[in-house]
Amino acid sequence: MGCLSREQEVVMEITQALAEYVVRTGFADLPAEAVTQAKRAVLDTLGVTLAGSLEPCARIAGEVIAAEGGQPVATVIGQGFKAPPRAAALANGTAAHALDYDDVTSSMRGHPSPPLLPAVLAVGEETGASGRDLITAYVIGFEVQCKVGRGLGQSHYPHGWHATATLGTLGATAAAAKLYGLDVERTRMALGIATSLACGSRQNFGTMTKPLHPGVAAQSGVLAAQLAARGFTADRAAIEAPLGFLRLFSPAQDAQPEKVLPDLGNPLDIVAVGIGVKKYPCCYGTHSALDAILELRERYGFTADDVDWVTVTVPNSGGQPFVKAGAAGGDGSTGDREAPPVGLGPLIHPRPTTGLEGKFSMQYCMAAALLDGSPVLDTFSDQAVRRTEAQALLRRVELVQAAEPAEPGRGWAEVAVTLKNGTTVRTRVDQPRGGPDRPLTWDELVAKYRDCAVRVIGSEATEESLRLIGELEHLSTVSDLTRLTAGRRTAATV
Amino acid sequence: MGCLSREQEVVMEITQALAEYVVRTGFADLPAEAVTQAKRAVLDTLGVTLAGSLEPCARIAGEVIAAEGGQPVATVIGQGFKAPPRAAALANGTAAHALDYDDVTSSMRGHPSPPLLPAVLAVGEETGASGRDLITAYVIGFEVQCKVGRGLGQSHYPHGWHATATLGTLGATAAAAKLYGLDVERTRMALGIATSLACGSRQNFGTMTKPLHPGVAAQSGVLAAQLAARGFTADRAAIEAPLGFLRLFSPAQDAQPEKVLPDLGNPLDIVAVGIGVKKYPCCYGTHSALDAILELRERYGFTADDVDWVTVTVPNSGGQPFVKAGAAGGDGSTGDREAPPVGLGPLIHPRPTTGLEGKFSMQYCMAAALLDGSPVLDTFSDQAVRRTEAQALLRRVELVQAAEPAEPGRGWAEVAVTLKNGTTVRTRVDQPRGGPDRPLTWDELVAKYRDCAVRVIGSEATEESLRLIGELEHLSTVSDLTRLTAGRRTAATV
Repeated sequence: MGCLSREQEVVMEITQALAEYVVRTGFADLPAEAVTQAKRAVLDTLGVTLAGSLEPCARIAGEVIAAEGGQPVATVIGQGFKAPPRAAALANGTAAHALDYDDVTSSMRGHPSPPLLPAVLAVGEETGASGRDLITAYVIGFEVQCKVGRGLGQSHYPHGWHATATLGTLGATAAAAKLYGLDVERTRMALGIATSLACGSRQNFGTMTKPLHPGVAAQSGVLAAQLAARGFTADRAAIEAPLGFLRLFSPAQDAQPEKVLPDLGNPLDIVAVGIGVKKYPCCYGTHSALDAILELRERYGFTADDVDWVTVTVPNSGGQPFVKAGAAGGDGSTGDREAPPVGLGPLIHPRPTTGLEGKFSMQYCMAAALLDGSPVLDTFSDQAVRRTEAQALLRRVELVQAAEPAEPGRGWAEVAVTLKNGTTVRTRVDQPRGGPDRPLTWDELVAKYRDCAVRVIGSEATEESLRLIGELEHLSTVSDLTRLTAGRRTAATV
Repeated sequence: MGCLSREQEVVMEITQALAEYVVRTGFADLPAEAVTQAKRAVLDTLGVTLAGSLEPCARIAGEVIAAEGGQPVATVIGQGFKAPPRAAALANGTAAHALDYDDVTSSMRGHPSPPLLPAVLAVGEETGASGRDLITAYVIGFEVQCKVGRGLGQSHYPHGWHATATLGTLGATAAAAKLYGLDVERTRMALGIATSLACGSRQNFGTMTKPLHPGVAAQSGVLAAQLAARGFTADRAAIEAPLGFLRLFSPAQDAQPEKVLPDLGNPLDIVAVGIGVKKYPCCYGTHSALDAILELRERYGFTADDVDWVTVTVPNSGGQPFVKAGAAGGDGSTGDREAPPVGLGPLIHPRPTTGLEGKFSMQYCMAAALLDGSPVLDTFSDQAVRRTEAQALLRRVELVQAAEPAEPGRGWAEVAVTLKNGTTVRTRVDQPRGGPDRPLTWDELVAKYRDCAVRVIGSEATEESLRLIGELEHLSTVSDLTRLTAGRRTAATV
């Protein structure tokens, strides 16, 4: 290859380089910060998967795989049974994304954990992986999906691809290949197979099929690794080749393969770019305003009864709602593309009457924060939204879109609260808590986990699983953790 | 919708119209010719699936699903066990395409049956479908995938999508939805889910992942229908919407949604466009030349010993090999895009030494035709290719590319045979037998089936299955047929 420039050589070797990276990276190679981030992600993702397992999309996926039966190898989280690894990955990936309460990262332009962790857990249970194996596979899969994401063109997401699903398929495959202990050549084949399994249409946002996407990605990652482990073949350069993953999923022919390898493994994206965590189980567009009103409430000590009027100002979203409005079963998260504009886009329910509408109602979120404090899952039950006092209060919340446009990645909000005594207090939050630069504390993550987990597995298993995740790098087998997250079997899945 | 033009209204209703078509079409609505075509396709596809079940890709897929276990509902053809419908569809779709000996159709730009029939058989076994149910579901799935294919832009295939897989996912879904008896709304949801499951990269041509594509499509069709049957939701216009299937998979923004509905169901593509069947188990680029040399051999009564020299002239393929050369496990079929140029492209082995190379060697195919007559599967064993007499004879075959370019859909060949007595005889075939306009006779299809089936299920089951397919519309349950195609279980899948 002497006639190639250095850049061309780098581009040509992507699939091989990724396979070598996957095989040669061990727990000892991970910086301490990567281990910390992985533990935080496991905590957050297990929690939202538990809560999500109660949602209809996750229950239906559970019914389908329960009807298939099969070797009880991997835990179907929250549904009280075990299934073959592929099947468990399908159901758990769906549950992880069901509430759109799961984490985000910008270099992947999507949700890193819901396609990845379910594959890691399923294959981890099958292979008897330890906590260190789990962390290693998770960090490797995260790195692969994020670094490949850098090579996708800007056209990927606007054209209609759900990056969480497409890139997640590669990350899940890398992680599964690691846990199965594949060699470099078979890992390369697994990544190649995965390029033919990647899929996911954004047109299905706002329906149950959106959370299905990471479920399918997780399932495909397990399948690709299982096939490659047995000698199945794929193109050796399936990521970077002329019709390969990067160009196939960059419809405007704007792929940038040269961006994939330069920082592979160092610095790790999980450290250098980091993870954003949703603090509240509702539209990300409400998060800065929630931070603001909770800060005012605490600082000035007023109660809902003291409030006459609330004005929330958010940036101009350019008239471009970034999810379509009004579809059933939707979520409206902004977490699926890099630096989303945050504005009125999905906040389409000024007068919500259901829990789901409440998630996309700035008016209700402000009312709930005044009434109850920091929103939790129960804040978005139909009953909670229909409370007389909430319905009265939300009518005194005004949502204003500023002329100032949203800056990429900066979903600011200004909240002004006028009290019945005539005083007006106000504050502005430039970006919500939970973003990579304003991380939640471990205690805040624990509070979110408890809210998610206790309703599915009870407080004893919740506390015990918290303890195990806190010491994840010392866990002898993943099954010790997943057993605690199994939950109870229902009639539909018996 | 009064402000919309008629054309816009038609475009807007594609998913709904397809769902209505699927639900409302019964066996009694099918023209006799469609029933005949379906029976021919079942015969041809079951045969190539049986033969393909011996290939490593199909065996590995079988091992993966055997390891999963599960309810023994649907027959894994040729591998001697039953599996859940999704799993059986995965293995059987892979087997159906393993030899690239499966059928083609131009309006789909690919192989219609390998993603479709495995889904039909698997769900047919689960639901206790009759032969009429099978035929009805097959014809409906065929129609859906072909008519949607008309709406894809010309950019779909060149950009790197494997149309067999992408469109096949929709066809398999429609057929599975029909057999599960879904109503219009749930069929619409199933088609919507399917748009998020469609995938398949052409970069993997020439590897085991190519035959995996219709396996995945068949599996996805079953999954989409199973989810929708339980109330899973998707976008209601997922095929025609702005980010929907047609535009997502037409990267150059050249989708033509208005082309989908005008002839939906009448005339059926299975009748009006028809099916091309491979007469010989080797590269389609050799088929016209094989027809020609077999015609000369029969007309003039010479034997291999009489032949001094053979010159085969084929059209100019424009220097564009349409599959990449030399990859392992490949097939080189031209059946994956509309009107492929037929030329030297995949005929890259003038001096083959393995069975697989022999499939892509005009020289060997001519030698084999002279020695043995019409090529069958055993013609392409390593042993057969390495025969001394074949190796000697193939060195006296010359392959010439004409200046005349290939016309779309017309893979002509001229064969001139110079005998040792100094005579030269020649003939030209304008397109191979087996194409929709030059269909194989039922007896020729039966001969192909016997060659494929007998090595897997023995002659008794071969003849009995032939009898059942001949009377397919009178078959009381699909299981009566699939039981005969089960074959024997091997150590790997026990």
